[in-house]
Amino acid sequence: MLNVGLIGYGYWGPNLFRNFNANSGFRVTAVADRCPAVREKLAKAHPGLIIVAEAGELITMAGIDALAVATPVATHYPIASKALDAGKHVMMEKPLCTTAEEARDLITRAERAGRVLMVDHTFLFTGAVQTIQDLHRKGDLGDVCYFDSVRVNLGLFQPDVNVLWDLAPHDLSILNTLVDEDPLHVEAAGYCHVNPGLPDMVYLTLHYPDNKVAHLNLSWMSPVKIRRVAIGGTRKMLIWDDLNPEEKIKIYNSGIEFQPETSRNTILPDYRIGDITSPRVPKYEALNGVVEHFRRVITGEVTSIMDGRKGLRVVSILERAQASLDAHLKRVSEAGGGIR
Amino acid sequence: MLNVGLIGYGYWGPNLFRNFNANSGFRVTAVADRCPAVREKLAKAHPGLIIVAEAGELITMAGIDALAVATPVATHYPIASKALDAGKHVMMEKPLCTTAEEARDLITRAERAGRVLMVDHTFLFTGAVQTIQDLHRKGDLGDVCYFDSVRVNLGLFQPDVNVLWDLAPHDLSILNTLVDEDPLHVEAAGYCHVNPGLPDMVYLTLHYPDNKVAHLNLSWMSPVKIRRVAIGGTRKMLIWDDLNPEEKIKIYNSGIEFQPETSRNTILPDYRIGDITSPRVPKYEALNGVVEHFRRVITGEVTSIMDGRKGLRVVSILERAQASLDAHLKRVSEAGGGIR
Amino acid sequence: MLNVGLIGYGYWGPNLFRNFNANSGFRVTAVADRCPAVREKLAKAHPGLIIVAEAGELITMAGIDALAVATPVATHYPIASKALDAGKHVMMEKPLCTTAEEARDLITRAERAGRVLMVDHTFLFTGAVQTIQDLHRKGDLGDVCYFDSVRVNLGLFQPDVNVLWDLAPHDLSILNTLVDEDPLHVEAAGYCHVNPGLPDMVYLTLHYPDNKVAHLNLSWMSPVKIRRVAIGGTRKMLIWDDLNPEEKIKIYNSGIEFQPETSRNTILPDYRIGDITSPRVPKYEALNGVVEHFRRVITGEVTSIMDGRKGLRVVSILERAQASLDAHLKRVSEAGGGIR
Amino acid sequence: MLNVGLIGYGYWGPNLFRNFNANSGFRVTAVADRCPAVREKLAKAHPGLIIVAEAGELITMAGIDALAVATPVATHYPIASKALDAGKHVMMEKPLCTTAEEARDLITRAERAGRVLMVDHTFLFTGAVQTIQDLHRKGDLGDVCYFDSVRVNLGLFQPDVNVLWDLAPHDLSILNTLVDEDPLHVEAAGYCHVNPGLPDMVYLTLHYPDNKVAHLNLSWMSPVKIRRVAIGGTRKMLIWDDLNPEEKIKIYNSGIEFQPETSRNTILPDYRIGDITSPRVPKYEALNGVVEHFRRVITGEVTSIMDGRKGLRVVSILERAQASLDAHLKRVSEAGGGIR
Repeated sequence: MLNVGLIGYGYWGPNLFRNFNANSGFRVTAVADRCPAVREKLAKAHPGLIIVAEAGELITMAGIDALAVATPVATHYPIASKALDAGKHVMMEKPLCTTAEEARDLITRAERAGRVLMVDHTFLFTGAVQTIQDLHRKGDLGDVCYFDSVRVNLGLFQPDVNVLWDLAPHDLSILNTLVDEDPLHVEAAGYCHVNPGLPDMVYLTLHYPDNKVAHLNLSWMSPVKIRRVAIGGTRKMLIWDDLNPEEKIKIYNSGIEFQPETSRNTILPDYRIGDITSPRVPKYEALNGVVEHFRRVITGEVTSIMDGRKGLRVVSILERAQASLDAHLKRVSEAGGGIR
Repeated sequence: MLNVGLIGYGYWGPNLFRNFNANSGFRVTAVADRCPAVREKLAKAHPGLIIVAEAGELITMAGIDALAVATPVATHYPIASKALDAGKHVMMEKPLCTTAEEARDLITRAERAGRVLMVDHTFLFTGAVQTIQDLHRKGDLGDVCYFDSVRVNLGLFQPDVNVLWDLAPHDLSILNTLVDEDPLHVEAAGYCHVNPGLPDMVYLTLHYPDNKVAHLNLSWMSPVKIRRVAIGGTRKMLIWDDLNPEEKIKIYNSGIEFQPETSRNTILPDYRIGDITSPRVPKYEALNGVVEHFRRVITGEVTSIMDGRKGLRVVSILERAQASLDAHLKRVSEAGGGIR
Repeated sequence: MLNVGLIGYGYWGPNLFRNFNANSGFRVTAVADRCPAVREKLAKAHPGLIIVAEAGELITMAGIDALAVATPVATHYPIASKALDAGKHVMMEKPLCTTAEEARDLITRAERAGRVLMVDHTFLFTGAVQTIQDLHRKGDLGDVCYFDSVRVNLGLFQPDVNVLWDLAPHDLSILNTLVDEDPLHVEAAGYCHVNPGLPDMVYLTLHYPDNKVAHLNLSWMSPVKIRRVAIGGTRKMLIWDDLNPEEKIKIYNSGIEFQPETSRNTILPDYRIGDITSPRVPKYEALNGVVEHFRRVITGEVTSIMDGRKGLRVVSILERAQASLDAHLKRVSEAGGGIR
Repeated sequence: MLNVGLIGYGYWGPNLFRNFNANSGFRVTAVADRCPAVREKLAKAHPGLIIVAEAGELITMAGIDALAVATPVATHYPIASKALDAGKHVMMEKPLCTTAEEARDLITRAERAGRVLMVDHTFLFTGAVQTIQDLHRKGDLGDVCYFDSVRVNLGLFQPDVNVLWDLAPHDLSILNTLVDEDPLHVEAAGYCHVNPGLPDMVYLTLHYPDNKVAHLNLSWMSPVKIRRVAIGGTRKMLIWDDLNPEEKIKIYNSGIEFQPETSRNTILPDYRIGDITSPRVPKYEALNGVVEHFRRVITGEVTSIMDGRKGLRVVSILERAQASLDAHLKRVSEAGGGIR
């Protein structure tokens, strides 16, 4: 039984609390949160629980084996670095931290301390994403040509992040299981309709070798919520509509019959339009799988699929995207654009 | 009664033929097409019709008042320039021509000749687009903040154009009725999965003053056909799904309550989520309206909404987009990308 | 080459005209229609065509091998009986006639004359229905337990038939290819909201041996058009949504695991929920297949799948349904119901 | 503060427990459940709670003001009758009991005891049904002509009720707020595909005066879950699709223009097809509203909208439907049908 300390009991914290306690290998023994009202409510509901205000107290607390951290992203690096140095296993909410440099430093510290550093990219443990990964692993899709995501809704505006950092980590963590390479180019354009300096619409394009492309349409300004990812493979294509309860994934046995090398100048490729299959996607709480994975990585039963290096790649892409976004915003602003 | 010559009787030509003959102000008296089989079939079905092989014959033919031209885009400029010089009224299929310079020259020739130069942007005469324009004109949407289009399908690959020139003219002609300005920047990225040098996926972003943005997701590589445009206004937002037969347009009385100038640093805007309305969209053949508009412009009853200047703006944006696309393809190619 | 006479050139007649002429084995040489304007228009467009006012002229006309009849249903029996007696092959629009007695008489006359009597149940030649029949024939569905159809729209009110006779023939002809038995009971309830005596909503239930059931929800009073048939089999279930252009048919690998004989008193059957498959449904004009089938039945190449006996079963069920409907309307009327 | 005893802690009990405790006017002080494991778990989680095995103990327990009863329907009458006699306010899960006679007796006992008898028809407190009721009350729909419900899914088979008693109470309670009359006729047909004697598909038709009709298509044998009610009014029509999260209700400004009295024999009514509106449906937990309503009825603040008389009408229709169903099953069985 591993004792867990939970840092941050805001939106996501209660889910972590519940899932860690539901896992027979963990017990949440302490929680840190800066909000007095939150601490008071927790104390009333859970008499035996250690409750403190400051993350620092948990980091150094004896008897705690692992920390789960659900705080604003700007605080991730200081908390995680100290926690690893103090010999705790650490599970960070996504994204891991704010720069690639921080991420590399955390990886080094985890290795030096011999402790587990994991990032909670919860989507990787959903039935839908695991179904997609299975299809990809078995070669059903062929080579992935494109990944095209529309992830839009009305708000919610976040105080500390723009729409890129809010929504892109989901797509990037999934994309990285399909395309195990760094992008050659990362280009982002963004628009600030509500708060100046805080883009609420971002178009992100990732260019990979061999003409692979990923495109993310991210918005807090859409009147309807859409969670739709199209993945084009050389053999099959699929659409993942996460809001369709009955048919989350549709696999299209359709495609372009690619021409052999010698006939590349011909211009009318053949189409293949076949059946559409919607595989049964198992329904369960993904976070339950995340917590169990954390346990099995700590005990050495499995290799982590959400380790620091995975987190680093996501952060690294976000960092490059933000640089491109900043350049774009500057260019548009100089050209006479800007907030109304 | 105006006598019309039709140049090009391929995919779209028969529709022009039918609609011109259905209009009481026009009569198609001659057709030019290079394909002998097409001419033979036409001759059998329409005994009195003049049928020739070369466009040039119609251009100079006496007794013909107007020409409708549905040939590959590369031939548009030579045909249209000679036709205007020969004193014919001209209706060109979209896009008007291949460069802004050509478009400007055609406008000049039309003015000099005192003849009508019109571009058949058929979508402008659909019930859906006219409903959107009415909403915009009445101010129901407020100021347009964004125009976000997904226009994708599986093929059809065109021999002479890439996906940008095939699909973007539709969106650009519609967009230009909502945003009557030239874009500050035009950025395009494209991918060639089937034929090298012929992009089959293009992402096009147009940056307008005041943070207005238009984004077009164009693809011949999607397993499903999507024709979906989201238009965000400061008052209302709308989604136009052209493939939904019953509810093509949905208007969302939803939005972000924009903060007053002084409180711009506050970060939690209010949401307004209200009713959704799907106005009745009249169903009729748009091309019928195009032909009647052409007639009324020739007779001087109305001012053209699809004149050379409108066509010029579309071509001008396409030209800038193609330049950006070329630069992008070169950059990706040099970085090690390229066709598999 | 068989010469065809077409009787009735109203809503469906032009489709018959076009499809018969497109078939290399037929040529439409004569048309009868009572409307002078229709005849005039036909004469102008088709100079060589024989055009008459009265069906009787075509029935006895020499040189005509087959008649296609698209007139109001009340006229079907007199026309078809005389045509068969005159030695013509006959293709009747659905339903074949108005009573089972008439239908049996027509079958007898066709046999006596050695001529083909066919009913144009066009739906049987659609890609969707042929896909369903293939699934059924291969045993993929198992035994059919139920057939549940919702066939509703707003109008169109017909002058000579109620909603039962307008919409039910489609379902009945399809149903009869899945369940080759006469129903034990036929029950219908109907409601007249607009014209007294002319039901615009009808619920029709057919009870077959072995607890098989068919239920038809037919309405001219629905604000949306629905064409949705659910077919439950002991192995798989399917939904046919004829208005879904991309996924007309969905096959659910789901069901109830039926209990073995001995455990029938147990009450919690197991569920099986599996993948959903949407087979590619070929797109073509069904009427083209109907006409070709007619040709091949006349030449003896195939046995008719739409012969008089099939037509008889549809008419017979309609007749029983109408009797039940009449009894129901009388009962409701006596109980104080009736038109507002 | 009223003390509540909860009888039955199975599927629905925990929801009642949570909602009663969340209401500031109630406190759940005792729970009765026959299952030892349930009692044990409750005791661990809620130390101060009185927990007993038998309903009888709560019924006579001093200090308890009200009982909420969520037990199998066969036990409703004995529990409710004793509870009312013992001076408790009673809230019964739907349906109230199994016969109209029982229901009338309970109403009498409640009046005699001066206690509240309420039935938890939760749907009446959903945003969707309240929106429909508002539209109806304001006259937007005009007179209701029909109520057509499809309420189907795969299972869940219930041990003690057939599909009629499982699913129809929802529709009947809603229907009764729109049509405040007893039906003239009640007709039901049912089919037993899994357990003999326990229909898993039922078609229920209710005939009301003035040609009003309600039709319920109820099934445990559908591969997809559907919750779709169409309501046709003389002014507008609406579709309530309870599984559509964004647009639960669509109002169609469409209809048939009813002919004036004198022209009833004319047969081509006019259609009116107008806009479609999807009003914003508030989202909240309906049971919360039910519990608050119970409190306000007890305190005399409001008149009950879910009292014994409402419950009686639902039970009375169910009883008539069951009689029709029994007759139907007997008739089919004698005719050679029956379970395979």
